[in-house]
Amino acid sequence: MTGRLTIALDAMGGDHAPGAVLRGASIARRRHPNVDFLIFGRSAEVEPMLNRLKRLREHSQFVHTDDAVGSDVKPSIALRTGRKSSMRLAIDAVRDGLAKAVVSSGNTGALMAMAKLALRTVPGVDRPAIASFFPTQRGESVMLDLGANITCDADNLVQFAVMGNAFARSVLGLQAPTYGLLNVGSEEMKGHDAIQEAAAQLRAIQLPGQFHGFVEGDDIAKGTVDVVVTDGFTGNIALKTAEGTVKLYTEFLRATFRHSLLASLGYLLARPAMRKLRARVDPRRYNGAVFLGLNGIAVKSHGGSDALGFAHAVGLAVDLARHGFIDTMRDDFAALAAARSGTAPRAAVS
Amino acid sequence: MTGRLTIALDAMGGDHAPGAVLRGASIARRRHPNVDFLIFGRSAEVEPMLNRLKRLREHSQFVHTDDAVGSDVKPSIALRTGRKSSMRLAIDAVRDGLAKAVVSSGNTGALMAMAKLALRTVPGVDRPAIASFFPTQRGESVMLDLGANITCDADNLVQFAVMGNAFARSVLGLQAPTYGLLNVGSEEMKGHDAIQEAAAQLRAIQLPGQFHGFVEGDDIAKGTVDVVVTDGFTGNIALKTAEGTVKLYTEFLRATFRHSLLASLGYLLARPAMRKLRARVDPRRYNGAVFLGLNGIAVKSHGGSDALGFAHAVGLAVDLARHGFIDTMRDDFAALAAARSGTAPRAAVS
Repeated sequence: MTGRLTIALDAMGGDHAPGAVLRGASIARRRHPNVDFLIFGRSAEVEPMLNRLKRLREHSQFVHTDDAVGSDVKPSIALRTGRKSSMRLAIDAVRDGLAKAVVSSGNTGALMAMAKLALRTVPGVDRPAIASFFPTQRGESVMLDLGANITCDADNLVQFAVMGNAFARSVLGLQAPTYGLLNVGSEEMKGHDAIQEAAAQLRAIQLPGQFHGFVEGDDIAKGTVDVVVTDGFTGNIALKTAEGTVKLYTEFLRATFRHSLLASLGYLLARPAMRKLRARVDPRRYNGAVFLGLNGIAVKSHGGSDALGFAHAVGLAVDLARHGFIDTMRDDFAALAAARSGTAPRAAVS
Repeated sequence: MTGRLTIALDAMGGDHAPGAVLRGASIARRRHPNVDFLIFGRSAEVEPMLNRLKRLREHSQFVHTDDAVGSDVKPSIALRTGRKSSMRLAIDAVRDGLAKAVVSSGNTGALMAMAKLALRTVPGVDRPAIASFFPTQRGESVMLDLGANITCDADNLVQFAVMGNAFARSVLGLQAPTYGLLNVGSEEMKGHDAIQEAAAQLRAIQLPGQFHGFVEGDDIAKGTVDVVVTDGFTGNIALKTAEGTVKLYTEFLRATFRHSLLASLGYLLARPAMRKLRARVDPRRYNGAVFLGLNGIAVKSHGGSDALGFAHAVGLAVDLARHGFIDTMRDDFAALAAARSGTAPRAAVS
C-alpha cells in the first residue's frame, strides 16, 4: 500500500506537549511522505508552533479543542469528563474512519480505557493487551502484555499469543514467527495452572509460525522467540527490570572509563563506536507501545518522549496501518473460531 | 564470633563436580582460615584430588558415600531414593549439629526438598524461599523469592519480607534495611489482591528498618530498597531477565569495540579498566542462593559454577553462620507472633 494515510495525533499528551508531538510529527512526515496528520489540541498552544513547521502544516488538518486529559487523572474520570479532550477526539477519528491510527504520549490508563470504549475489541478478544518491541541478540522481538492486565487466565494468554503473532507478521515482516510463553523453566511441567493450560491450548491450535513452548527470562534478550507472551504483571516487571539493568550497566561503563587517564584516552578513541552503541540501546528507538486487540490502531508514546521518540511511535503506527495489521489479526481470530467450532467441538474455548 | 566453624559440602553436585567443589573449598579456606569442611562424596573421585589439596585436606573431614543425586532427578524421587546421597548426608550434618551450613551445586529442586524435610521451617514460616544478592547503583541488595514458590498468597509475601529483612541485617550488615514489594507501579492501589493485602499487613507490623511500599522493576537495579520481596514466578523471571540483559549489553559492547581500528585501539588502552567492569558484573561474585526460612543454612551454588563461584557460595554460608542469621530470623518471627497475639487480636495471621 502506497496511498495516502492519515494519522490522528493528541497534541496535548505527554510531558513535552505540544512541542515534542509537533516536532516529532514533522520528523515522521519527512520519513513517511505519504502520511497526513489530523491534529487535536488547544489552538493557542498548537497553532503558533504548527505555523512555523510549514511542511507539516501543509500535510495536517488541525482541530481545536479546549479539553485535555491530565496525566494523573484516573481512567474512569477521564472516560466521564474527557469526551471533548484532544485524546478522545483523536481516538474517535480512528473509530469514524477519518484516520487509520492514533498516537498519544498522554495518560496510559485513560488512553487504554478510551480506546477500548471507542474502538471495541475484535471478535474473539476478551481483553486488549499492550505490546512493544525490544532489541535482542538476534534482532528485534515483541513482548505482550506489558501491563494492561494484572491477572490473566489461560484464554487471555492464548489471545495475546494470537495478537502478538499477527503483530510480528505485520511489523517484523515475518511469515512464520516463533512464539513462546514466559515461564520459570522450559520443561513442560513448569509454571502455574493458567500458563499450563495456555500451553496446552497453543499446542492444539494452528497459527502461522511455530509455538516454541516455554521460554525463560534470559530468553527475552537472547531473542529465542519472535513473540514473548506473558501476563501484564510479569511483563511489566520484566520490561522495567531490563530497562533498569541497562541503566546500571551504562553507569558502570561510565565509571570504568573515568577510572584512569589511559581509560579516558581509550574512551576518546572509541567514542564514535560508543555513540553507535548508545544509539543501538537508545530507548527512543523502541518508543511506542501498541494497544492490541482493538478495531483500530492506538499507539502510546512514552510520556517523557522527545520529538525523535515521538517520531518513532508515529512510524510504528504507520507500519501497522500500511501492513494491514487489524485485518490480519481479525482474520486469525475468525479462522481460529471456525477451526474450533468445526473440527474441535470440545476445544477449550472460553 | 571468631571460633572455628564447620561447613558441610556436597562434593558430587554441579556440572564440574568434584573438581570445582574442592578447588572452590580450597580458595574459601584461604579466605576464611577458621573454617573446616565436612565433605561428602565418592571416595574414588574425591580423595585423589583432596590429597593433592594439602591445606584443604588438613582442615577437612571426608565421608564416603556411593550415592549422588542426578541433575535431572525429580525432587520427589530424590527424596525417596537419595537418603544416602552426598547431598542428603551434607544436609543431615547440619540437622545433626555437625556443621553450621551446607553448600551444594547440585539439583536445586532436590536440594530444596531435602533441606525442607530435614531442617524444617522456622516457627511462623509456611514456605521457605530462595534469596540472592545482586549489584545495584547503590551497592548490593537482596531479592526473594527467586523461584521456590510459583504462587504466593499475602502471608507468604509477608513472611518473605521478614526473612529478607533478617538476611539483609545479617549479611549486608544493615541495622535498619529498607524493604519493598515488587509491583507494576508504586501507587498504593496498584497490583493484584495478594500484593495489596501483603502491603496492608507490612504497613501494620513492626520490623527493623522501613517498609518502602511498592517498588517497580527498574527499582531493582537502582537499589531503591535493600530487600525486594516478590513471588517466585516474578522473581525468577526478573532475575533471569536482568542476567539476559547484561549478556546482551556485553555482546553489544564487544561489537562496538570491534567496530573500527580506532575503537579497538581505544579498547586496548581501556583494557585494565574494562577488566574491573567485568569483575564488577561477574556472575560468580553473586553466586550462592540461600534457602531462607529453615532451621539451618543451606546455600545453592549455580550448577555451572567454577571454583571461584563455589568459593563465593561458601563465603556466603560462612557470613550467614558467623552473623547468627538463623537466630535473628527466629527471633523476628517470634516477636511478630507475640506482637500479633498480644496487641492485635484481629491481625491477619495465617
